[in-house]
Amino acid sequence: MSQKIRGNLIIGQSGGATAVINASLVGAFETALADECIDGIYGMLYGIQGLLKEEIVDLRAEASHVWPQLLSTPSAALGTCRYKLQDDDPGRIIEILRRNDIRYLLYIGGNDSADTAHRLAEAAQYTGYELQTISVPKTIDNDLPITDHCPGYGSTARFIALATSDSAMNTISIPWHYPVKVIETMGRDAGWLAASSALGKRDEEDAPHIILVPEEPFNADRFLAQVEQIYRRIGYVVVVAAETIRDEQGQQLGAIKQAGTDAFNHPLLSGTAEYLVELVKQRLKLRARFDKPGDLQRMASNAISQTDRHEAYLVGKMGVQALLNGESDKMVTLVRHTEPAYHCTTELAELAQVANAQKLLPASYLNESRTMVTKAFYDYALPLVGDPLPQYARLQKIGVRR
Amino acid sequence: MSQKIRGNLIIGQSGGATAVINASLVGAFETALADECIDGIYGMLYGIQGLLKEEIVDLRAEASHVWPQLLSTPSAALGTCRYKLQDDDPGRIIEILRRNDIRYLLYIGGNDSADTAHRLAEAAQYTGYELQTISVPKTIDNDLPITDHCPGYGSTARFIALATSDSAMNTISIPWHYPVKVIETMGRDAGWLAASSALGKRDEEDAPHIILVPEEPFNADRFLAQVEQIYRRIGYVVVVAAETIRDEQGQQLGAIKQAGTDAFNHPLLSGTAEYLVELVKQRLKLRARFDKPGDLQRMASNAISQTDRHEAYLVGKMGVQALLNGESDKMVTLVRHTEPAYHCTTELAELAQVANAQKLLPASYLNESRTMVTKAFYDYALPLVGDPLPQYARLQKIGVRR
Repeated sequence: MSQKIRGNLIIGQSGGATAVINASLVGAFETALADECIDGIYGMLYGIQGLLKEEIVDLRAEASHVWPQLLSTPSAALGTCRYKLQDDDPGRIIEILRRNDIRYLLYIGGNDSADTAHRLAEAAQYTGYELQTISVPKTIDNDLPITDHCPGYGSTARFIALATSDSAMNTISIPWHYPVKVIETMGRDAGWLAASSALGKRDEEDAPHIILVPEEPFNADRFLAQVEQIYRRIGYVVVVAAETIRDEQGQQLGAIKQAGTDAFNHPLLSGTAEYLVELVKQRLKLRARFDKPGDLQRMASNAISQTDRHEAYLVGKMGVQALLNGESDKMVTLVRHTEPAYHCTTELAELAQVANAQKLLPASYLNESRTMVTKAFYDYALPLVGDPLPQYARLQKIGVRR
Repeated sequence: MSQKIRGNLIIGQSGGATAVINASLVGAFETALADECIDGIYGMLYGIQGLLKEEIVDLRAEASHVWPQLLSTPSAALGTCRYKLQDDDPGRIIEILRRNDIRYLLYIGGNDSADTAHRLAEAAQYTGYELQTISVPKTIDNDLPITDHCPGYGSTARFIALATSDSAMNTISIPWHYPVKVIETMGRDAGWLAASSALGKRDEEDAPHIILVPEEPFNADRFLAQVEQIYRRIGYVVVVAAETIRDEQGQQLGAIKQAGTDAFNHPLLSGTAEYLVELVKQRLKLRARFDKPGDLQRMASNAISQTDRHEAYLVGKMGVQALLNGESDKMVTLVRHTEPAYHCTTELAELAQVANAQKLLPASYLNESRTMVTKAFYDYALPLVGDPLPQYARLQKIGVRR
């Protein structure tokens, strides 16, 4: 460990925002505030993309009451970006950091952001500029390696579990109206979010009945046979599908170009949910419709998991702590403990090991049908969504005797 | 007022379910339980459609702990239907009621359900069967006449207001990623739900920026000019559109048949949101996407308005009270009071006046642009959504001085 250096700290938020990414910012800010080695506590506007334009704000100048409020404010308060560094960017950024005497850099984000932080660490070393960089994990997709899970995932998983249970309640109230419902979730190449839709499911009749994850190739005949079989058994089918599903040829559903295009010269069928709804309507002649919560699943303030928020705060705090301990070129990771009860501590992982890796849903979390999760997944994911999910009352519906 | 008669009561739920329709059932059940004139307290399974099959359940046989739980259980616990009475149905239903000695009928639903209750009242009178029917209002669409508002609306309005604020937080964090967002709401021919998206808006920059209601004909050029102007001013645009929007020729957006059809022989562009997104992409060359919460907006248990739930309970209770007071062929209405603070009492309206009428958003609730609500709408709707909507923290973003 190197000697503590005196200088300014800059914090950035990057990638898709989450409902709790601001908690990491607050954790980092409050920890920095308590240390006398850190002079300025700065923020990048819109992540590295703003930093490249030297859009740097002074977080010490913010009113003190904003910090507790930020804990329950979804989205990235500093603004975020999805920007891949160009070859000459790291050198330019080092110059900007030097000009502002920034010696500590904390970057809150996912895989791409870890890559950015790693490249800045390398550039600093190459140019002999004394800089420490630490990356703080954040992604609803839960696809970062090494860390047990990613802050942001628990809240979106809670949203999706609730949305699936709640939306299915409507289907159950009048099953024949739209017997097939498709709910589309985010998740890019990983099925963590689609899988979370099962967290409120308690028996076979409960929704979801079919989960389509990106890890499993889609076969239309197999899917339709499964829909039909469930429909015949219980009268309705709730399908949860990740936005990115590929068929056995690797072609993404809903992005298949047809011979023709629509009035706007765009390929027909613009998404997975629309595709599946049309498939069911056409091939099974069943009424079907879809819910697509979209950005709401990232941001819903009324589905925030307290556990997730706490852990987002923790990784922000431990990120600054790591900087103050002389660490650099590393990402904070969450380490799960189950005794005496679920809780997490943190460790550090080399950024080089994180930057270009992606953690997919392990095979053991899907059962033999590949369209439903196993108990192992419940054990993994349930602690992350915070308070117990609501249990709804059901009438016994005992017939009147005459 | 006629003398109280002794007999059985049957309760049914009808039309699209809501997050609080079970509160009306609980209010009705508990009131019936307390009265000695009512023998059996029955429920129809799937509304009138189940009653026609004599699917009648005994609500007194339910475990007592189910009733408080039902208060926070979204959807229609008895099941619901969307069924228009056939000519010989009323006569058949009267026979079924007679066979079961049912003298009181409470029907919780919207316009169509009021029509059903009215026709049953007429049929009973015609056949000389002593039956009292009362209708209890319920619809997220808020389009029933006479009543100040409809139970179910407040909770969906709360959901939509939260969803719009929250989802927009994502847009604001990275405006150039998808500068245009469309959020599609329910609401059939009435703009009450789309309008509710503005309830969390505090200034011009806050979302939504454009509200498209069914009451106003859609003009693509005017819409695009407005989108472009807002985009140039603040860098992003959040549009909230009701599912049913018609152009100036009365053609519904998103249902316009093209020369060609897609691979499934369906008309292209299956919904309002998809249509608007494609229009913006094609004509303005701006990245756009949509959120479509779908059934979730009816059902979200974490967006229930306490006020709405309380009023749903109240109308259920007062419906049974009206039956016991000898009333028939009427609907319970909510009457608003503002002194000393917002609260509602109930009255009764003739079902004949309710059955085929629809209350649209009054012109005074839209400003001169016809795409934003007025203060009068806030005054009307804010008390209905319950607890104050969350206020999110914003950083002041004060630049670093060097």
